[in-house]
Amino acid sequence: MVRQFFRALASPRSDRPSTGAFFKAQCGVDLCHALLFEPGGMSGTRLASHALDAYKALPSNALEIFLDRLVDDFAPDPKRLAVALESYRAQPSPITLASLQAAVESPRQELFRRLNLAPGGTSALIDLRHEVLQTLEAHPARSVLDLDLLHLFRSWFNRSLLVLRAVDWRCSAAVLEKLIQYERVHQIRDWQDLRRRLQADRRCYAFFHPALDDPLIFIEVALTKGMTGKVQPLLVADSTVSDPQQANSAIFYSITNCQPGLRGISLGSLLIKQVVEEIGRELPRIRTFASLSPIPGFCRWLRSEDARGRSSTELRTHLRSLDEPDAKVGPAGESLKPEILRLCAFYLLRAKWGRAPLDPVARFHLANGARAERLNWMADTSEEGLRQSIGVMVNYLYVLADVDRNHEAFARRHEAIASRELHRLAHASQTAASNAPAVGGMARTA
Amino acid sequence: MVRQFFRALASPRSDRPSTGAFFKAQCGVDLCHALLFEPGGMSGTRLASHALDAYKALPSNALEIFLDRLVDDFAPDPKRLAVALESYRAQPSPITLASLQAAVESPRQELFRRLNLAPGGTSALIDLRHEVLQTLEAHPARSVLDLDLLHLFRSWFNRSLLVLRAVDWRCSAAVLEKLIQYERVHQIRDWQDLRRRLQADRRCYAFFHPALDDPLIFIEVALTKGMTGKVQPLLVADSTVSDPQQANSAIFYSITNCQPGLRGISLGSLLIKQVVEEIGRELPRIRTFASLSPIPGFCRWLRSEDARGRSSTELRTHLRSLDEPDAKVGPAGESLKPEILRLCAFYLLRAKWGRAPLDPVARFHLANGARAERLNWMADTSEEGLRQSIGVMVNYLYVLADVDRNHEAFARRHEAIASRELHRLAHASQTAASNAPAVGGMARTA
Amino acid sequence: MVRQFFRALASPRSDRPSTGAFFKAQCGVDLCHALLFEPGGMSGTRLASHALDAYKALPSNALEIFLDRLVDDFAPDPKRLAVALESYRAQPSPITLASLQAAVESPRQELFRRLNLAPGGTSALIDLRHEVLQTLEAHPARSVLDLDLLHLFRSWFNRSLLVLRAVDWRCSAAVLEKLIQYERVHQIRDWQDLRRRLQADRRCYAFFHPALDDPLIFIEVALTKGMTGKVQPLLVADSTVSDPQQANSAIFYSITNCQPGLRGISLGSLLIKQVVEEIGRELPRIRTFASLSPIPGFCRWLRSEDARGRSSTELRTHLRSLDEPDAKVGPAGESLKPEILRLCAFYLLRAKWGRAPLDPVARFHLANGARAERLNWMADTSEEGLRQSIGVMVNYLYVLADVDRNHEAFARRHEAIASRELHRLAHASQTAASNAPAVGGMARTA
Amino acid sequence: MVRQFFRALASPRSDRPSTGAFFKAQCGVDLCHALLFEPGGMSGTRLASHALDAYKALPSNALEIFLDRLVDDFAPDPKRLAVALESYRAQPSPITLASLQAAVESPRQELFRRLNLAPGGTSALIDLRHEVLQTLEAHPARSVLDLDLLHLFRSWFNRSLLVLRAVDWRCSAAVLEKLIQYERVHQIRDWQDLRRRLQADRRCYAFFHPALDDPLIFIEVALTKGMTGKVQPLLVADSTVSDPQQANSAIFYSITNCQPGLRGISLGSLLIKQVVEEIGRELPRIRTFASLSPIPGFCRWLRSEDARGRSSTELRTHLRSLDEPDAKVGPAGESLKPEILRLCAFYLLRAKWGRAPLDPVARFHLANGARAERLNWMADTSEEGLRQSIGVMVNYLYVLADVDRNHEAFARRHEAIASRELHRLAHASQTAASNAPAVGGMARTA
Repeated sequence: MVRQFFRALASPRSDRPSTGAFFKAQCGVDLCHALLFEPGGMSGTRLASHALDAYKALPSNALEIFLDRLVDDFAPDPKRLAVALESYRAQPSPITLASLQAAVESPRQELFRRLNLAPGGTSALIDLRHEVLQTLEAHPARSVLDLDLLHLFRSWFNRSLLVLRAVDWRCSAAVLEKLIQYERVHQIRDWQDLRRRLQADRRCYAFFHPALDDPLIFIEVALTKGMTGKVQPLLVADSTVSDPQQANSAIFYSITNCQPGLRGISLGSLLIKQVVEEIGRELPRIRTFASLSPIPGFCRWLRSEDARGRSSTELRTHLRSLDEPDAKVGPAGESLKPEILRLCAFYLLRAKWGRAPLDPVARFHLANGARAERLNWMADTSEEGLRQSIGVMVNYLYVLADVDRNHEAFARRHEAIASRELHRLAHASQTAASNAPAVGGMARTA
Repeated sequence: MVRQFFRALASPRSDRPSTGAFFKAQCGVDLCHALLFEPGGMSGTRLASHALDAYKALPSNALEIFLDRLVDDFAPDPKRLAVALESYRAQPSPITLASLQAAVESPRQELFRRLNLAPGGTSALIDLRHEVLQTLEAHPARSVLDLDLLHLFRSWFNRSLLVLRAVDWRCSAAVLEKLIQYERVHQIRDWQDLRRRLQADRRCYAFFHPALDDPLIFIEVALTKGMTGKVQPLLVADSTVSDPQQANSAIFYSITNCQPGLRGISLGSLLIKQVVEEIGRELPRIRTFASLSPIPGFCRWLRSEDARGRSSTELRTHLRSLDEPDAKVGPAGESLKPEILRLCAFYLLRAKWGRAPLDPVARFHLANGARAERLNWMADTSEEGLRQSIGVMVNYLYVLADVDRNHEAFARRHEAIASRELHRLAHASQTAASNAPAVGGMARTA
Repeated sequence: MVRQFFRALASPRSDRPSTGAFFKAQCGVDLCHALLFEPGGMSGTRLASHALDAYKALPSNALEIFLDRLVDDFAPDPKRLAVALESYRAQPSPITLASLQAAVESPRQELFRRLNLAPGGTSALIDLRHEVLQTLEAHPARSVLDLDLLHLFRSWFNRSLLVLRAVDWRCSAAVLEKLIQYERVHQIRDWQDLRRRLQADRRCYAFFHPALDDPLIFIEVALTKGMTGKVQPLLVADSTVSDPQQANSAIFYSITNCQPGLRGISLGSLLIKQVVEEIGRELPRIRTFASLSPIPGFCRWLRSEDARGRSSTELRTHLRSLDEPDAKVGPAGESLKPEILRLCAFYLLRAKWGRAPLDPVARFHLANGARAERLNWMADTSEEGLRQSIGVMVNYLYVLADVDRNHEAFARRHEAIASRELHRLAHASQTAASNAPAVGGMARTA
Repeated sequence: MVRQFFRALASPRSDRPSTGAFFKAQCGVDLCHALLFEPGGMSGTRLASHALDAYKALPSNALEIFLDRLVDDFAPDPKRLAVALESYRAQPSPITLASLQAAVESPRQELFRRLNLAPGGTSALIDLRHEVLQTLEAHPARSVLDLDLLHLFRSWFNRSLLVLRAVDWRCSAAVLEKLIQYERVHQIRDWQDLRRRLQADRRCYAFFHPALDDPLIFIEVALTKGMTGKVQPLLVADSTVSDPQQANSAIFYSITNCQPGLRGISLGSLLIKQVVEEIGRELPRIRTFASLSPIPGFCRWLRSEDARGRSSTELRTHLRSLDEPDAKVGPAGESLKPEILRLCAFYLLRAKWGRAPLDPVARFHLANGARAERLNWMADTSEEGLRQSIGVMVNYLYVLADVDRNHEAFARRHEAIASRELHRLAHASQTAASNAPAVGGMARTA
């Protein structure tokens, strides 16, 4: 029966064109059923391969149907669940609890485990979750797929299986081209650009997983004298390579998640910590570990209700100039610098999303236990840098000895750790705006 | 607080000697609590390491307490479960179902996931389950630990992470000594013995897992002319090495699980299939793939109620001679050969455990889709071979083209696939014993 | 003393500017003397490193002096040689012969052996020979350097140390960029172009040597249906990748020596034979192994004395059009095709350099034991292809069973092995030109 | 013709039994001739393989003939040499010198180079030289074979091709068994013994060469607190493993050449220097690098003419007790300790072989630039230790900063570098024996 469906899938009858998508989706679903429920028959691995091939071959309209069928057809059986539930209520015991646990688990999880038997299964399931995430807003019922996959990925991508590897010019081209492809923070223009980022005064590290060829996440580091506050010099492909033995600082200038389908699996924090240890071992003279980070939400916040009363007319004029989509974007005048830096410190440390920082990058680094150390004026003069944060960037400092304590303060008391200077600036902004209405958090709906 | 407990664990106060075991177990449990419930504090990886170290350092009386505390303290919260349960009953929906799923999952699973963050975590958890399994009979409540770990291991040891490797004399000594240590079927006496089993007319394959140094399971194969029916010649350390290009058969003469803590994770069937493919690729002249397998339960069955009416007085006398623990065990007389082979065929094909074959090795190979092909008289003349099966061994034949079909027949219809000759022998035995009482299955309590 | 020289080299005294080059060369020579003659002192490896660094730092005028000093200062000692020579003449014996052998060996060889102790020594010596070869015409006395280095390279690059490696997209970027850099036959434009040449329907192999990071030589192969006769389709970066399992032919379309300093070390022939074996093992369906080769000297020959009487007025007109450096070069008219192919066959098989084929590529493949199989009209329509051979290319066929015999016929009897068709064409050309003056070999001065 | 000989070799005619050895040797020689002189014919690699196979298959009587034929048949051609010699004498020039160099080189060298084309060629040629060295005394004419091979090996085993590898329990069993097999200084009894020598408080390093599977030389190192002066504790297989991070000394207690056919290729000195650097990098707390070395020639020297007048009657009595082959050997009495240590210091520092130390181990370490640091009483209480040096051992200290200077002093001025204490002891012995006849060097015939 299985083979029949699979053949049908490969060459759908031409006399049923209108139901083509439905029919193809049905074939995929049937293969999933076979994989999950048929005792014996074709070997599991082969059947899983067929089911995955069927899934991958689905045209987009059939895929939509297929996803909804995964939601409906592979949910826990309500009757079995009801029985288990009543047994447990009647007499709570390890045995009735075990039955309840078994009955409540979504059969999808076992289905996904079996699909994972096929070669390339892990990668295909990551793609499947990516697909689900992208359509989740329009199809909220699919959140069960999201959760089931996330639950499995938490196990499959547990840290004991993550492999940290230094990435350099001796690495496989197949891996290196992924860096070019995935890098979002500061795009890699071509192989020459990539090559510069892998030379002696740079480091690049990535987490790999045994079941995947591609990296999961990677970080780019510049070895510098002093804590760099400007990013463009780091991105010049033909700049002089400096001697790493002379460097005293490691600047994380880009960190990129490669697998959108792994959203929710925390990798960045672990990566940074391991990289700090690696570099510290290799180059003991390096004492300063810091990011040079964008502030992606700064201008958006400046335009928000929350910030309105705080900014000068001159700044608002500048903000409006950034709004014009076709205009060439210029830097803000130096006269605005004090105001902008004050507001930026305020934004980073006091603008909240729930009880966490509103800025997503700040949220990430502060939760990691880093300290917001220094604002840098005219730090990213690219068009995107000027548009999103008027060119301001921030260094988050990683002091290994403090990271656990900072993390704890952040996790327990929502305390944003920052340098005295940043606190001073944020406070100055508060005072400057004392006549303005009180600043609350934004609604947690971003 | 965590550190305080850990220090306490390292040097328990001498004024509380009587409660030492309890106190140490408590420290371990406290670290587990901290790992699971404390937001922030020490980094997860470090805390997990501490908890594992504490666990490993437990003396046996403390370990007993610790295991029971894992059962009691990390079960689902009954109140939270009751609430989720009522919500779901009141209004079954994806949301109430998700809450129920979350409430019913044992917090132990998350605990184990976090323990797995520590270096060596996977290996320690496998040992933990081994500990649980060994004490399960006396402590049936610990089955929840067993199940929670098994559930996780199913994910962590999914096939996409198993790595098949040929093991030969060029392998690491650290791996090879594991073979010596683990091999149970035909013990490896020393390095010379091992070396012989890795030479040109042999193959050895193992599954490895990225989070473990040790192999999970390994198989030993002899490349021979014809389907070998005697095992001792394969075990002679100084026998002549024959040319593998001249061989036409691959004989699986030993398959060994190395991790008792992974019981229930099926590895053997997959290993055999992949090994058949590997050898077929490397040596296309090899057409016959078969095991040379022990029949561990044959004599035990001959002595059972089930078999009593079937055997001759002469055979029963021989069986009694095998019972004497200190006596030197000899082979059965040739006159008994027809009767023994008939009964052996009957035992393999018709004696049942539930609906499956009573013999565990038969159960394994027949479930894999192999065919019981040939009985071999005086095949294992070692003392153990004579005691457990009067020296008889059996070849199970793997014909790749039939394996799926056989497996299906076995899985669906409990059909034991065997050669015509074996069926004939089993039938002859049945007839011979027609006056005897009907043969039923043994109670499924082995 | 050594250190003093080395310091001098690093910072030459400013009061001796006119003798700067001389002085720097002298420092290099002094370090070589120290390396060769000073018993003890600085360790050999360190001294060799210093000497190499000194050599590498020489500006070009100092390098010229340095090379000449290597010729003069490290030749065999004439007095010692005279003594050894007389002893041998007076009484030839193993002992006097050994003395003579020792006295006649150039101390340069020992010097080069010791320089090779330094990290990067082998690579530097290859560069040194490249330098010598480039200036040999102007400085014929340097041929002794060339010969001494070649003698050593024959030992150092003996075949037992050559490592054949498949080069594909999983290889190190550091290796792959060498391919882009070295490829001369059909230039690799960029990484996309390279990537296409490494996909499933292509193979690339290279020889590596343990003391060098760079490849020594590499070959590019296309897996095709039938013996391809046109090269441009192989060079299109975005062409469709075909299934290698469907291919029946392996076409060598480029072979590139990467180390000009290794001239005279024969690598290509061995590479082709090993690649034929590798591909034959991996893809047993491939039965045809052939090059698709340029004919670099065809037009040059057509313009030579040797060919003058053979060509038609029309062809000569076309040849003149190819001469104009700035004009766009077009293909020859179809009406010229028979004449051109006849002349081309004649050129390949009968135009000689000494007793060997005049065309260098023909010389290479025929000496390897290949057979000139087929001429291809409009096979290379690039400007260079049209200029050097009016777009004609040739397939040399490698039939492993015949290669040794062909090689022997070529080596002993200077017989150019070719297909019947090529012989026919060459003969037709001969007949057509019967009124023309006899064709002799070109003087062996190319 | 070649094939005919080879077949003949494989199955010599039975009607020529008396000339069998001669005939087989002749076949080998003929294959060598073919390899060297026949233009074309079978490919070089295959022919080289045949020739090597023929050589390896020679029975010992045929091998003797074969070796002598290599001496006679592949020497430089006297006539060609005479011509080249006269040309050079008539007009010395680079050209006549090049001819002379070509004429004087033994064709054997080219023969060996070509034999090296075969797989396993390098290893076979090392064995060939071993064979020659073992029979050199009886066949001094074979020294030309020795020298030709040594000349080639100097190139083939140049340092740029030596690969230093740490050897530990994770290494291939195939490599590890070589250690068991080769170790001569302190025999490795079995795999358990080997395992102990590779644990955390030990290091083992070896040089490998790309054309050989076996190590060339290896060194065993113990990481200890303080400069160990007793060897037996290092050789106990079940001793406690100590923490390498606590060690401050690295003691080289065994260094073993694995390839007797490479005699004269200096590897040990380089190995020690690289190992000092490696360990220094890995474990910066280790500051003392020293050997714990045997004094193999001490008792032999004590019995020699040279030492006769120096020793007491009591010591001579003890020496005689060591001579008795079957007696159980005991330690010397404590009363002899001062005399023995004085004489031992004298032996190490002042007894000479030519101008070098008479003791071969002293010669090795002092030439490397080490310092004779300390004598150790009852340091090796094995029977062999007692017999060869009355149990005394010596530490040679490697201070990297002094090694070059020491080496230079040794190489130029034959100065044996030793600690003040050793010099004092040696001087005391001299004085004690002032009435004895003057001590000269032993004749250089050892």
